[in-house]
Amino acid sequence: MGAPGKAKRGIPPKSDFNSWYPSIVEIADLVDKRYPIKGMDVWKPYGLKAMSLIDGLTRKQMALTGHHEHRFPLLVPENLLDKENKLVSRLKAAREAGVDPSELRMEEEDSGFKKEVYWVTHGGENELESPMFLRPTSETPMYTMFSLWVRSHSDLPLKTFQIVNTFRYETKQTRSFIRVREIHFFEAHTVHKDEKGATEQISEDATMVQRILHDLCLPSLVSKRPVWDTFPGAWYTMAADVVMPNGRTLQVATYHHYRDQWARAFDLKYEDQNGENQFCHQTTFGMSERLLGSLVGMHGDDKGLIMPPAVAPYQVVLLPIASHVRDDVIPEIHKIRDTLNDAGLRTFVDDRDVRPGVKHYDWEIKGVPIRLELGPRDIDSGTCIISERIGRKYESPISDIVNSVNSALISVADELRVRASSHFSDLVSELPEISNEGDGHQFSSPIIDGMVYSFPFCGTDSDAEILERLSGLTMLGECVDEYEKPRKCVITGKETTKKQHLARMY
Amino acid sequence: MGAPGKAKRGIPPKSDFNSWYPSIVEIADLVDKRYPIKGMDVWKPYGLKAMSLIDGLTRKQMALTGHHEHRFPLLVPENLLDKENKLVSRLKAAREAGVDPSELRMEEEDSGFKKEVYWVTHGGENELESPMFLRPTSETPMYTMFSLWVRSHSDLPLKTFQIVNTFRYETKQTRSFIRVREIHFFEAHTVHKDEKGATEQISEDATMVQRILHDLCLPSLVSKRPVWDTFPGAWYTMAADVVMPNGRTLQVATYHHYRDQWARAFDLKYEDQNGENQFCHQTTFGMSERLLGSLVGMHGDDKGLIMPPAVAPYQVVLLPIASHVRDDVIPEIHKIRDTLNDAGLRTFVDDRDVRPGVKHYDWEIKGVPIRLELGPRDIDSGTCIISERIGRKYESPISDIVNSVNSALISVADELRVRASSHFSDLVSELPEISNEGDGHQFSSPIIDGMVYSFPFCGTDSDAEILERLSGLTMLGECVDEYEKPRKCVITGKETTKKQHLARMY
Repeated sequence: MGAPGKAKRGIPPKSDFNSWYPSIVEIADLVDKRYPIKGMDVWKPYGLKAMSLIDGLTRKQMALTGHHEHRFPLLVPENLLDKENKLVSRLKAAREAGVDPSELRMEEEDSGFKKEVYWVTHGGENELESPMFLRPTSETPMYTMFSLWVRSHSDLPLKTFQIVNTFRYETKQTRSFIRVREIHFFEAHTVHKDEKGATEQISEDATMVQRILHDLCLPSLVSKRPVWDTFPGAWYTMAADVVMPNGRTLQVATYHHYRDQWARAFDLKYEDQNGENQFCHQTTFGMSERLLGSLVGMHGDDKGLIMPPAVAPYQVVLLPIASHVRDDVIPEIHKIRDTLNDAGLRTFVDDRDVRPGVKHYDWEIKGVPIRLELGPRDIDSGTCIISERIGRKYESPISDIVNSVNSALISVADELRVRASSHFSDLVSELPEISNEGDGHQFSSPIIDGMVYSFPFCGTDSDAEILERLSGLTMLGECVDEYEKPRKCVITGKETTKKQHLARMY
Repeated sequence: MGAPGKAKRGIPPKSDFNSWYPSIVEIADLVDKRYPIKGMDVWKPYGLKAMSLIDGLTRKQMALTGHHEHRFPLLVPENLLDKENKLVSRLKAAREAGVDPSELRMEEEDSGFKKEVYWVTHGGENELESPMFLRPTSETPMYTMFSLWVRSHSDLPLKTFQIVNTFRYETKQTRSFIRVREIHFFEAHTVHKDEKGATEQISEDATMVQRILHDLCLPSLVSKRPVWDTFPGAWYTMAADVVMPNGRTLQVATYHHYRDQWARAFDLKYEDQNGENQFCHQTTFGMSERLLGSLVGMHGDDKGLIMPPAVAPYQVVLLPIASHVRDDVIPEIHKIRDTLNDAGLRTFVDDRDVRPGVKHYDWEIKGVPIRLELGPRDIDSGTCIISERIGRKYESPISDIVNSVNSALISVADELRVRASSHFSDLVSELPEISNEGDGHQFSSPIIDGMVYSFPFCGTDSDAEILERLSGLTMLGECVDEYEKPRKCVITGKETTKKQHLARMY
């Protein structure tokens, strides 16, 4: 990482978010988008460090909950898909017998999946006997192995995760971190004795997502996705969506309860205490570099990024002032740096021979939470100047610098949470009332582009379809937060505490 | 990671190394080789953790020397190879003009490279306009970007690295960590103003390799590879080889001085202080999961692995004794564990309800450097029992446990270095004398399979060829360690301090 490079071109105003976002990811040196494959960016050191720190938060949650890190091969032989196809056939048969509509989605999704992967067909000059694809996610390679690993109830629960590159042949417009073709991906896969074990896992996943989003200072909407947005083969899918400043929602985490649907396809069984074979129940939990995209989008301002302290590559940048005037400025600032490093803080001394204004400008772009300035007069008074990236600036005694900096970091994180919640409130509004006269359903006032709408809803799938068609937006699904008091469903008019959202999704 | 699974099948004796090695990597739960693609193993938590700790040693060296971590895309469009082809053509022309034989290797190597990569030809159901290959190493993707990043002398040196998965369509027999098709790979790429800068980098690389090998307790042979084993486009290639117990050498690190050959192909120039454009000079430095393979192979014994303390996933396993007899054993052992963790040590409390003998056996297989036992009598006497994996066992006062454990870890590492050096001396011997009578060159005594031979050599490439043909072994190249006093070259008979080795390479 180190000092920023030479001055960059201007940043578009954040009010023009769709210009600001793609500019800032390059101006702040998170990625370089000039690699000659669309949607495959080069991670620059500053961006990669931020992502690694996010991975660190995830690994910490995984360790606390007894998940073990594995790494599975990237390449998946096509013939392993036979088992997924078996799952599809089984579900097709179920559909014909007239069952749970969640299962009806499989076939479509599966053929969609094949369209979205990259295929390796040749090794050197040889055509491969069986083509292989680059994992989009790892159900197939993992469950192939799980069925070798799980034998008895004592092998369960099996809680695994990996952080790897995954691939998607993306035909839509790509955006750094948000929609890319090589994805920095986290996936946890667990195996349980029964539905209850898997349900408890879903609840643990929900807690972990909220802990991570708390550290990233990001509010979110957590919803049970509608049936048509449920992951293939899942009983149900939960998702956390962040609302970006342009009012579009960004799905940053999903966790799926599979019941035993995948286990039946992969013949994943265990012997229970009575010596009987039982199919396992499974869950998956996924997150990606979208977490970085969402904090970039949510927290930044006209001057650049604002990094949440938990994942700021540098938490404190130290700026020597007038070090050419007095020889002790650099040694003193190095002393402070060492004290902060010993306290586990991430720091950088910017001793470039450029004007202080240039340094301020550069580190504002990078969103470093705290700038610490020290000049000859400060040394004489035993103080230094702390500037928080969110605006506050004050003197602090050098003797108590670790406490001061830690308080400042907490203050920055708190302020980011307050700002993000306020943004969020501004972007989420009540759905206009709906009338249903002779000319069909109509909103009482127009739907505004860039807003997320909340409303009471207890209707059917076809009621949901009416809302999507009418608004041109997408249903996020049943929100885990319900209304405190029952309200009237916007379609059925029945009393309900259930809440839903309509939004434009990324 | 956690406690080992149920008892595994027996370990072949290490004297039968070619059976021992493939067994131990699975028995110790480093990898699972049953994934349905040959040479693509599943990393189990214990193996992945050891590899991550090795990566940590590498990252530490990179940080100390001012290298910055990047991440480049895995996929490389075929048309980027045009630049490499240009390099080939240039070198072909040079050959026709009769120059440095190192350059003559390019063409052959290049076509070899195309035979060794996996090709992605389809995205979904669409054939790609330009096929892409999975990186075997990253010269092409990186240098494409470097030529956008480097403008002036102030951008230099550029010191980058990445730790990523790379791929090789391997047709030879695969072996875990040693010869695989998806490779956990480290590569550093640097750009300098001139040959001198690049030469200094090569010297820095040499130091880093030795520091890492020291932590892994591995002696090595460092050689300048013969011209025919020089990396394509390199001026020269340095390599560190470890000698495995079967006498085969395993190349674990290479570092290459490119001069400006690649820079000319990629048009990688900078403006010097006088405003003139100059081609850059470059180096690369590579290591891989072979580091793990070599420490597994070198240090293990008939009972299992022996992990060097620097990269042992658990440095200390704590075993409660007779905890059913007295309630205070588990709380006391947890206290010791917490004290060790606070001191930065990696620990695990094995409180499984199995006989102590089973635990010993399991942790011997995993090669944990130190077992610490605590029972009621130990608590009463304020001591515990420390068993080092290398054989020593003694009492230690609990009050001084951090110092005791740290000393024990140093003792294990020192002993591993002593043993490895002794192995090494046993495996490297003087080349038998060579006579050159009417019937050509002949050895005075037969070449023994499983030995590495050292000898004074100052001959030509064709002299080297004679030696390779005569011995059936491979020349490792000019060793950086020379003889203290001049000796007679085995072919020319001239006095020289230069040393070479003949070996069977992995």
